Amino acid sequence: MTSQTPIEYLRSQDERHIEDLLEYARIPSVSAQSQHAEDLQKAAHWIANRCRHAGLTVDIHETPTHPIVVARTPNPEPGKPTFLVYGHYDVQPPEPFELWTSPPFEPRREGRNVYARGISDNKGQHLAHINAIEAWLQFGQPLPCNITLLIEGEEEVGSTSLLKFLPEHAQELACDAVVISDNGIPSLKHPTLTYALRGIAAIEIRVDGPDRDLHSGIFGGSLDNPAMVLCQMLAQMRDTKGRITVPGLYEDVQKLSAYERRQMAKLPSNPDKYRRFLGVPQLFGEKGFTPEEQRTARPTFEINGLTSGYQGEGSKTIIPSWASAKITLRLVPDQEPRKIIAAVKKHLQRLCPKTVRLTVRHGHGGKPYLVDPTGPLAQAALRAIQAGFGCEALLAREGGSIPIVSAFKEHLGADSLLIGMALPDDNPHSPNEKLSLDAYAAGMRMSVHLWEELAAAMA
Amino acid sequence: MTSQTPIEYLRSQDERHIEDLLEYARIPSVSAQSQHAEDLQKAAHWIANRCRHAGLTVDIHETPTHPIVVARTPNPEPGKPTFLVYGHYDVQPPEPFELWTSPPFEPRREGRNVYARGISDNKGQHLAHINAIEAWLQFGQPLPCNITLLIEGEEEVGSTSLLKFLPEHAQELACDAVVISDNGIPSLKHPTLTYALRGIAAIEIRVDGPDRDLHSGIFGGSLDNPAMVLCQMLAQMRDTKGRITVPGLYEDVQKLSAYERRQMAKLPSNPDKYRRFLGVPQLFGEKGFTPEEQRTARPTFEINGLTSGYQGEGSKTIIPSWASAKITLRLVPDQEPRKIIAAVKKHLQRLCPKTVRLTVRHGHGGKPYLVDPTGPLAQAALRAIQAGFGCEALLAREGGSIPIVSAFKEHLGADSLLIGMALPDDNPHSPNEKLSLDAYAAGMRMSVHLWEELAAAMA
Repeated sequence: MTSQTPIEYLRSQDERHIEDLLEYARIPSVSAQSQHAEDLQKAAHWIANRCRHAGLTVDIHETPTHPIVVARTPNPEPGKPTFLVYGHYDVQPPEPFELWTSPPFEPRREGRNVYARGISDNKGQHLAHINAIEAWLQFGQPLPCNITLLIEGEEEVGSTSLLKFLPEHAQELACDAVVISDNGIPSLKHPTLTYALRGIAAIEIRVDGPDRDLHSGIFGGSLDNPAMVLCQMLAQMRDTKGRITVPGLYEDVQKLSAYERRQMAKLPSNPDKYRRFLGVPQLFGEKGFTPEEQRTARPTFEINGLTSGYQGEGSKTIIPSWASAKITLRLVPDQEPRKIIAAVKKHLQRLCPKTVRLTVRHGHGGKPYLVDPTGPLAQAALRAIQAGFGCEALLAREGGSIPIVSAFKEHLGADSLLIGMALPDDNPHSPNEKLSLDAYAAGMRMSVHLWEELAAAMA
Repeated sequence: MTSQTPIEYLRSQDERHIEDLLEYARIPSVSAQSQHAEDLQKAAHWIANRCRHAGLTVDIHETPTHPIVVARTPNPEPGKPTFLVYGHYDVQPPEPFELWTSPPFEPRREGRNVYARGISDNKGQHLAHINAIEAWLQFGQPLPCNITLLIEGEEEVGSTSLLKFLPEHAQELACDAVVISDNGIPSLKHPTLTYALRGIAAIEIRVDGPDRDLHSGIFGGSLDNPAMVLCQMLAQMRDTKGRITVPGLYEDVQKLSAYERRQMAKLPSNPDKYRRFLGVPQLFGEKGFTPEEQRTARPTFEINGLTSGYQGEGSKTIIPSWASAKITLRLVPDQEPRKIIAAVKKHLQRLCPKTVRLTVRHGHGGKPYLVDPTGPLAQAALRAIQAGFGCEALLAREGGSIPIVSAFKEHLGADSLLIGMALPDDNPHSPNEKLSLDAYAAGMRMSVHLWEELAAAMA
């Protein structure tokens, strides 16, 4: 134990932190590929050892697939709040190899970036927290809170073992909040707290007409066309202003507060660059909202797939027997997947003519997620981010879902604070994944401040 | 030469006509299957011999695939009109064999039906004409017209050789009208002259959005969905009254005359039986027209296929990069395929938002066809049908296209009279194809009268 402040200690360990990162990234812990099963074990033990070295007590829980590592700050004090840091040591498959500039498991340092599979998603991000906790533990003063680290090896393949482990170990994982650093920020100058995620509701619509494909010459004109009926029904689900027309759909949508909109407006935005990135001739979204708001804070009705009749070369002169569409709606707080699916189904049934038979099948549903951005935990996180990154921390929403966030809410009753360190060009899930060493260092500093800020907020 | 009238002669030859039919039907002349090449030759020579035996002069024209048989009544008289009878000796593949009650090329006689592949489509129908012409030729009085028979072996595979042969032999095939018995009638009590066919115009529509499938969570809401755009455009092509909304589409549509509508109303009609036959919960078509009119005398806009995004099991949360639809419009006299395609394309371009890129590709086009139902040839044919079948002959339109009819019009400048002998349960192209021996006999009698009636009409 030294008298170095955690921040001073971090600075003194800079090169070691990078070396650790490279060593961890060399383990090809690809959870999707069974030939890497031993590498998953190796990664689990590597990170467990790293936690032990940091001064944490560690348990490795074997599962039918890959171990779950649980590490804790020593001598937990019941009077102090407890926070749980979530991460995963498994990585995406690196293929296609030929698109990598250097081998995916031979980390390459170039300036202030390190290139390797899994270095940003998620090895570097949870390692930053461990480094920060170590910095606290070597300090003369006690940590202001208890910290549990939960690091799994199946995030990229659906977290099957963890979703079973969570309810079984709810008591020992009990915490006041979860901290997840597994997402991104717009830039080093725009670090963010992600305080809301969209939910999802999936349905499949099928319209059945004649009991077989019919000759469009002999019969066409005297019966309805299921593909046309499907198009006409789907066409009526969204108006020209980009609003979903399902009655009641917006009933439970939380309005964006002036504070939220101001915060979101500070995020870097370049609509034309964004348009070019998407490869579309023109952006489109719900009138009255910015693209950032549209894609994160507003519900959507999206056709994911259409299938009907003949799809091969040339033409086939049929009235198809059926037509189907795969649909997902993105939901925002406080929309309920079940309620939304029921509303959509009812609307479709009302729109469907009697000339066909309609079937609506429910798919999966996931609730939207929101941590009150003005609440003490969110504000504490914002202060820590600001201190760590050295510039104003912004609030952001994300358009997608992070299923584990809902699982933590359900099984531990805890909110999650999403504090990313990844940059937009980090290429997670793509060739040439990288991590910015500046983001890595800022993340560590943020983590040092975070425990103090969160503990103070809970006091 | 006897003094038997043609009708008397036909009666006397009844059993031989059936035996001939069975013999012809035993030849497995499947044009789609190369292992049957010799059988096609066999069928061509069989029908050529049958024509010679009937007293006709015959030429067998070899082609790169299957021969074309041309037979003529002897000593053509330039002062008399000339009519051309078209038929085909090739048949559809018989598969699936297991659905046949008896082997497809072992004709089975059951009551007044004979079951065999190709017996209705088209062997029995052109054989009836040959039998009738033979009956004329054995008669003491000269035939009132010259007759040319043109029998090909590739009708079921696109008539490639004939479509080359026609312009090359236009002079020797010159005629005042073509007679084609290769279609059906509603019942033996409702024999018909088919005086109109619908044309066709095929297009393929593709809507391109983002240059790759995009994550519907991360981006959804800020860009348009190509599948939704496609649905919204297609939905606007037809209104709730079943009318196509493309401006100018009905401009050249010939109105049905009161006479035509009266005639069509006499055709047997049982909407509920028809609905059950189609397997739909409710019929649908353009308001103000009967189902028979809708499916034969009115244009249609039919979606033949839809393709977009993910079509596999479960869901995939994407905004698809593109969506496409295969479309065919059925056209009625006097709509022009090119004009209609241009009008549809223009309408689609007007409807398409700037958020996507639209591509419209032209497919094949075929003109609609009409013989004036009140003209002398049609009226002569109606009288012959009435005399042959022994009941009122009706006028009918067909909803499909018969490409060879357009070819005769183009290369020989001749109208076609479509006088079918097939019944609705004859199963052409399906297992257990059959021919009614009563229809066969009525067809022969009709043909005997036809030459007299047509010649008189031309006088």
